[in-house]
Amino acid sequence: MPRYKAVIAYDGTNYVGFQRQDNGLSVQEAIETTLKKITQQEIIIYGSGRTDSGVHAMGQVIHFDFPYEKDEEKLRFALDTQTPNDIAVRSLEKVSADFHARYQAHEKTYHYRLNIGRPRNPFKRFYAAYYPYELDVERMQQAANYLLGTHDFTGCCASGSSVEDKVRTIYEASVKKVSDDELLFVFRGNGFLYKMIRILVGTLIKIGNGRLPVDQFQKIIETKDRHLAGPTAHPEGLYLMEVNYHCDEETC
Amino acid sequence: MPRYKAVIAYDGTNYVGFQRQDNGLSVQEAIETTLKKITQQEIIIYGSGRTDSGVHAMGQVIHFDFPYEKDEEKLRFALDTQTPNDIAVRSLEKVSADFHARYQAHEKTYHYRLNIGRPRNPFKRFYAAYYPYELDVERMQQAANYLLGTHDFTGCCASGSSVEDKVRTIYEASVKKVSDDELLFVFRGNGFLYKMIRILVGTLIKIGNGRLPVDQFQKIIETKDRHLAGPTAHPEGLYLMEVNYHCDEETC
Repeated sequence: MPRYKAVIAYDGTNYVGFQRQDNGLSVQEAIETTLKKITQQEIIIYGSGRTDSGVHAMGQVIHFDFPYEKDEEKLRFALDTQTPNDIAVRSLEKVSADFHARYQAHEKTYHYRLNIGRPRNPFKRFYAAYYPYELDVERMQQAANYLLGTHDFTGCCASGSSVEDKVRTIYEASVKKVSDDELLFVFRGNGFLYKMIRILVGTLIKIGNGRLPVDQFQKIIETKDRHLAGPTAHPEGLYLMEVNYHCDEETC
Repeated sequence: MPRYKAVIAYDGTNYVGFQRQDNGLSVQEAIETTLKKITQQEIIIYGSGRTDSGVHAMGQVIHFDFPYEKDEEKLRFALDTQTPNDIAVRSLEKVSADFHARYQAHEKTYHYRLNIGRPRNPFKRFYAAYYPYELDVERMQQAANYLLGTHDFTGCCASGSSVEDKVRTIYEASVKKVSDDELLFVFRGNGFLYKMIRILVGTLIKIGNGRLPVDQFQKIIETKDRHLAGPTAHPEGLYLMEVNYHCDEETC
């Protein structure tokens, strides 16, 4: 059976998250239901990773095996238009049978949007977290620099994760004021732990408002103590922007 | 009773429109309900004009009479935080008793956002109309130039309007590509008729795709024939951005 890789975008507001769960509609279920409508067969999709309820994606990557060869643009269009309006299929291509959206992902980029204006912008209520208090952006950037490189991020991981190896490499960690009322955080790395980005943002906010010292990430990395980090920031600010794959032309 | 003027923003997606109606929740009702919670009294608010269901506002202006003097920032904050999350009260000030949000408005600015990318951006599904086909933006701008000045816009007004005088002056009518996947239309004038902006946009789209000639607005203005104009564009792209008032310091 031919394998296809697709890049999808979704507004996560009305989903329980990417992955199938008993308590409501997931992005996975919405797409699998559409594939079933198209093929009359049960097809399982695999994502590059989960996103939580309320978390968005501009560039989530999935793969699935399709029962027959189909023109890439026709399949993309069918999936794009037959999935609910809050899911878009941005691109789709045939890949080799050993391509895996999760295991071969070697770099992910996340954005986190923080609405800092007053009053809260009603158009951003599902698309940015809200924090209308004084933040020292330069201090936050200094703190974020401690994240760069390869570290054990156990202290920045929510409990409930089954991953054993908590060493990750972060290539980029930046905080910028991108408009009058918005801060944009960018994180790029070889992988991120469960709720890690939201814990990084929650900690950066506490550094930005002066309640934690600028070198707090150094302490969290050294001690692996989750209690030294800030709270988990809200999901609505988080976007999975891009997933990159290392692979030779034959596999993808 | 002191009179207050407020500038409000709202996401119109979940409202039947600005004005009270029997068939669902309006922005007016949401704000009046909040004023009643604060004062235990029935207070009527007056807007600069209606907006239809699904139409948004960044700068709608309202006024109302409040039973007692209250600090402007405290009243703004109370209204902002006690109204639903999709309504924001951006500013509030005491005005003279003869200020009227509707009758004294002398200039309004509207934006219309058109998502032109493929696939449709799921984050814009309630915040821009969608038209992913070829459009000649330069031709649309040439056509929009015919709107400038003082004209009888009977041919650009939906039926059901009770306004007798359909002469309006348009100061600005522009169409620009503001990003890879979005066109922005800006209209500024001394007033607009019922559904006029959406009819202007629907007509500009038909001019942009070559189905109507570039001087079509000249014919519509001359003949006053609504049938010569394009269809009414969807409400989700429309934003009331700003309302300006001519008034000396004593009245506002």
